[in-house]
Amino acid sequence: MSEPHFQRIALIGIGLIGSSIARDVKELGLAREVVISTRSAETLKRAEELKLGTHYVASAEDAVKDADLVIVSVPVGASEDVARQIAPALKAGAIVTDVGSTKASVIAQMAPHMPKGVHFIPGHPLAGTEKSGPDAGFAGLFRDRWCIFTPLPGTDANALQRLKDFWIALGSRIDEMDAEHHDKVLAIVSHLPHIIAYNIVGTADDLETVTESEVIKYSASGFRDFTRLAASDPTMWRDVCLHNKDAILEMLARFSEDLAYLQRAIRWGEGDKLFELFTRTRAIRRSIVQAGQDVDAPDFGRHALDAKK
Amino acid sequence: MSEPHFQRIALIGIGLIGSSIARDVKELGLAREVVISTRSAETLKRAEELKLGTHYVASAEDAVKDADLVIVSVPVGASEDVARQIAPALKAGAIVTDVGSTKASVIAQMAPHMPKGVHFIPGHPLAGTEKSGPDAGFAGLFRDRWCIFTPLPGTDANALQRLKDFWIALGSRIDEMDAEHHDKVLAIVSHLPHIIAYNIVGTADDLETVTESEVIKYSASGFRDFTRLAASDPTMWRDVCLHNKDAILEMLARFSEDLAYLQRAIRWGEGDKLFELFTRTRAIRRSIVQAGQDVDAPDFGRHALDAKK
Repeated sequence: MSEPHFQRIALIGIGLIGSSIARDVKELGLAREVVISTRSAETLKRAEELKLGTHYVASAEDAVKDADLVIVSVPVGASEDVARQIAPALKAGAIVTDVGSTKASVIAQMAPHMPKGVHFIPGHPLAGTEKSGPDAGFAGLFRDRWCIFTPLPGTDANALQRLKDFWIALGSRIDEMDAEHHDKVLAIVSHLPHIIAYNIVGTADDLETVTESEVIKYSASGFRDFTRLAASDPTMWRDVCLHNKDAILEMLARFSEDLAYLQRAIRWGEGDKLFELFTRTRAIRRSIVQAGQDVDAPDFGRHALDAKK
Repeated sequence: MSEPHFQRIALIGIGLIGSSIARDVKELGLAREVVISTRSAETLKRAEELKLGTHYVASAEDAVKDADLVIVSVPVGASEDVARQIAPALKAGAIVTDVGSTKASVIAQMAPHMPKGVHFIPGHPLAGTEKSGPDAGFAGLFRDRWCIFTPLPGTDANALQRLKDFWIALGSRIDEMDAEHHDKVLAIVSHLPHIIAYNIVGTADDLETVTESEVIKYSASGFRDFTRLAASDPTMWRDVCLHNKDAILEMLARFSEDLAYLQRAIRWGEGDKLFELFTRTRAIRRSIVQAGQDVDAPDFGRHALDAKK
């Protein structure tokens, strides 16, 4: 048990991310009180059954009273609503942060509502699974994962450090950049891959010449790798698409342009162009393995399936 | 040790697939003699160092003499060359098969060269990893994986059964369909996913606003799932693109059409269309898990990385 970092933490939203934070806070003793609030009465009840906090409150406004740290973990499209609800009840000196996958939009939605004397520090833990809801969370989700902060100009250095220390206690590696750059980086490393994955699974689902059972039966030959991403939370990803629109459209345009080039090379039998690309991409894979972001074990689903046995 | 299925097997090509077959044949005692041939002297030497066969022969023609079973495991674009080389030396009653990822093209390249009395039976084991070369192979690669045969009309039933029995001995599950259908199925479950993966990795590599080190650092948030496919053998995949052109272009056209629809929904903020697609794709994932083609363990690279420890 660590010394509590905060007297009272309020968690607004208790899905995969919120409930994982709750579990870590409890396990590590990072707060004396954890107040949980979520819009759905059913989810709130489930959070209580799971004993994720010390208090369970329907109203977000009531939940943040006397909280030293407020963590908003809702789909990014709900950020402004939450900001408006909690603003009147925030205590002076409180830190308000979020976990949203897009940052410029969350800042635009929340910052105008934050009262003077409250430290609003946007954050984004790069962690998650394709599951959602309070049952999907687990202690240790953030261990060895990046947490990116996008503090606004003039952010109080002490408050930022306290928030960083909290995430470090959860095992995260800390990074800092401006919101606009964050949104571009995430558009390519996370948003575009998810959109592409959703899209290809949709395309396969619509085919008349190949049955769905054939797609499923032979999915291990490549398709399967996309289906995990395409099983992610629809509400969260709808909001990401709508709230990081510009960066996503830019990445999509480049992707489509490159794909048209590839398509043309296939149509005209330009093997050298294909070979050049297929060789270049190997190097990136090697760098990812070298950076410890994946293991080099050859895989054809074999390892995942072996683990099951 | 089983009773040998064949007196003499000739393996033309000894990369990931050929060398995995060689290892299985040896381990299971499926042939008395295994003759290995490959174009590269260096690779042939390596096969001998790895003791993958009983004979090592530079010329494919020499290698197939007296062979009861010839397995051609080369990039599909090299099929015709191999067929032309081995044709004069094939013995009557021999079975010739291949492992290529495209079937109509392999048939068009090889069938015209096959002498009367030789049983040419195209096949495709749906197995592999992103690695290539004789060192990448391993015994058991084909276990619980599908092997699809696309026999020509009038194929000798006994020869087909002997070939199936051989693959069943390797642990494969057997399927049969016509070559054209095979090529469509594979275009969606394997070829399109690989092309998309290569493409997105290429797009990321070309960005000016996001550095390569950022892409690598944060790759676990989605991008990484694509890099494994994009590290596959460039020669093999160039040939697949060139030799399953029609089916691939059809799938690419549909994929691009769907992506344009999605892009438009993002641009115009049509959240309901996004939500509908993102919900529908979840069901396919569930079916894949139910069909035992993947495990349901939530993943954010965590399991793969845990396995390393």
